[in-house]
Amino acid sequence: MPTEFELIARFFRPEVHHTLLAGGDDAALLVPSPGRQLAVTTDMLVEGVHFLPGADAEALGHKVLAVNLSDLAAMGAIPRWVFLGVALPRADEVWCERFARGFLDLARAFDVDLAGGDTTRGPLNLCVTAVGEVEPGLALRRSGARPGDDIWLTGTTGEAAFGLQCCLGATAGAHPVAVSRCRQRLERPWPRVAFGREALGLATAAIDVSDGLVADLGHVCAASGVGAVIDWDRLPQSSALAGLEPVRRQELVLSGGDDYELVLTAPPGARSALLAAADRCDTPLARIGSVQEGRGVAVRDRDGRMLPLARTGFDHFA
Amino acid sequence: MPTEFELIARFFRPEVHHTLLAGGDDAALLVPSPGRQLAVTTDMLVEGVHFLPGADAEALGHKVLAVNLSDLAAMGAIPRWVFLGVALPRADEVWCERFARGFLDLARAFDVDLAGGDTTRGPLNLCVTAVGEVEPGLALRRSGARPGDDIWLTGTTGEAAFGLQCCLGATAGAHPVAVSRCRQRLERPWPRVAFGREALGLATAAIDVSDGLVADLGHVCAASGVGAVIDWDRLPQSSALAGLEPVRRQELVLSGGDDYELVLTAPPGARSALLAAADRCDTPLARIGSVQEGRGVAVRDRDGRMLPLARTGFDHFA
Repeated sequence: MPTEFELIARFFRPEVHHTLLAGGDDAALLVPSPGRQLAVTTDMLVEGVHFLPGADAEALGHKVLAVNLSDLAAMGAIPRWVFLGVALPRADEVWCERFARGFLDLARAFDVDLAGGDTTRGPLNLCVTAVGEVEPGLALRRSGARPGDDIWLTGTTGEAAFGLQCCLGATAGAHPVAVSRCRQRLERPWPRVAFGREALGLATAAIDVSDGLVADLGHVCAASGVGAVIDWDRLPQSSALAGLEPVRRQELVLSGGDDYELVLTAPPGARSALLAAADRCDTPLARIGSVQEGRGVAVRDRDGRMLPLARTGFDHFA
Repeated sequence: MPTEFELIARFFRPEVHHTLLAGGDDAALLVPSPGRQLAVTTDMLVEGVHFLPGADAEALGHKVLAVNLSDLAAMGAIPRWVFLGVALPRADEVWCERFARGFLDLARAFDVDLAGGDTTRGPLNLCVTAVGEVEPGLALRRSGARPGDDIWLTGTTGEAAFGLQCCLGATAGAHPVAVSRCRQRLERPWPRVAFGREALGLATAAIDVSDGLVADLGHVCAASGVGAVIDWDRLPQSSALAGLEPVRRQELVLSGGDDYELVLTAPPGARSALLAAADRCDTPLARIGSVQEGRGVAVRDRDGRMLPLARTGFDHFA
């Protein structure tokens, strides 16, 4: 069985592009770009909590990096460096090789350096800290939404949550192609980094959708001291969910989570610039509602009636 | 039971001093000091692997930060920001309060900002990423040791490993005061940050002793392409270990681990400057051997005989 050091050397020592010293020392050495601020995010994924036991290692490697890059995207930062802590029940070379492939393929796609980390024995746990760079004063915070702002959403929500239900066996009413697409959304989210960059200077607030659309927009509202109304009819609907019973579909779209899309707010004057920006980076973008005085998130149907909202997000200790 | 967000808000939102935006957003925002490089280290500590089940939460909070600050000390960096991932079996407020106290007391002592992190449910796992700043070109790497350099050690080694043996019940031959001191060393290591800073520009290489003195000096030798000889008689001996059987004591001192002292190499011309630096920051410092051509680490007694070395370090998957 390989040692800890052999595992690291074999699978977790990729080429780096903007790191002075990566791995093999007490710390990595980075040279931040002059005049930039750093955006730093940490996400910990635990087997049985964030992913199913026995989940495909390559998909896991992709996802644990993707969720962190999505956080940087929601700040409008350029991802640059990433640090990976892994606890593994045993030194499983096949698992490590696949996990590293998923992780490093995505890192390469975004030119992110795996600059350091730690490997140890323990119940499967993946902890990633990602570092990005952003122009001073421009980072997209949650706290900048103002009454009158539009609310924008990239892509669609609900597919990943349906993908999870499918993994758990609840595929009734869905076409195999739809199931496959939704599992892909669950396992291989693609962070909206390019659009996050484009939204700098246009959006007043942003967040990525991980807990669910209503819950995450609720975080923006709480941080900004405002309320929000989503127009159900404006929400882009995934064709993969079209065959589902309406109540179930509605819950997936509004509260499903794991979407890793961006929700943004911006003044109406930014509409054409945002649509042009989305077009430049091939990102589907829809205006789904508006920021209002008050607090909380409501969803209204085409007749102006408010929809009842059941679950509004995810609490790991609930 | 409190939610994840309540736990974070209650215990893990301390005052920060050099962080633009800490917690409560998709990422933290930091402003690195102009012209500095960043040293970044990640350590993951797992219950039953790095600490005993039921370990005191306050001591754990201290230790998980201390081991990361020790890595920054070994680079000669000033610790600035830290990010904390915690997986907890349940939302235990008492545990969180104590853990946060141990963690934040040490953070305050070193003026380190807890700038972000993640809290989730799962088998107890603590993953810290610490970020420090260092002058360009001066960071202490493992790879700079040259034949003819002296080898230096701060403090003493072996006490923490004996402290662990005591926790496991093997206290035979030890005075209660010694047991208490060694448990303190195990549970409350104090990172040698000040001396690491002083050694910038003097030392040619450095590492912190976590795996064991011989093993960690071995990492320096491997990275530098050199060998090392430690003179047993020059190694400062802890009075707490004085009552132990010599073979046991020798193994603790050479291979015990968890010491979080610094081992450095420096040319003989730096002797008086290093001793003066150690004096300035009240750090015990001893010259314990020399770097040689070749490879590996040997330990010789007063008669020039090489001591047999049994264990040489720690592999988490062994």
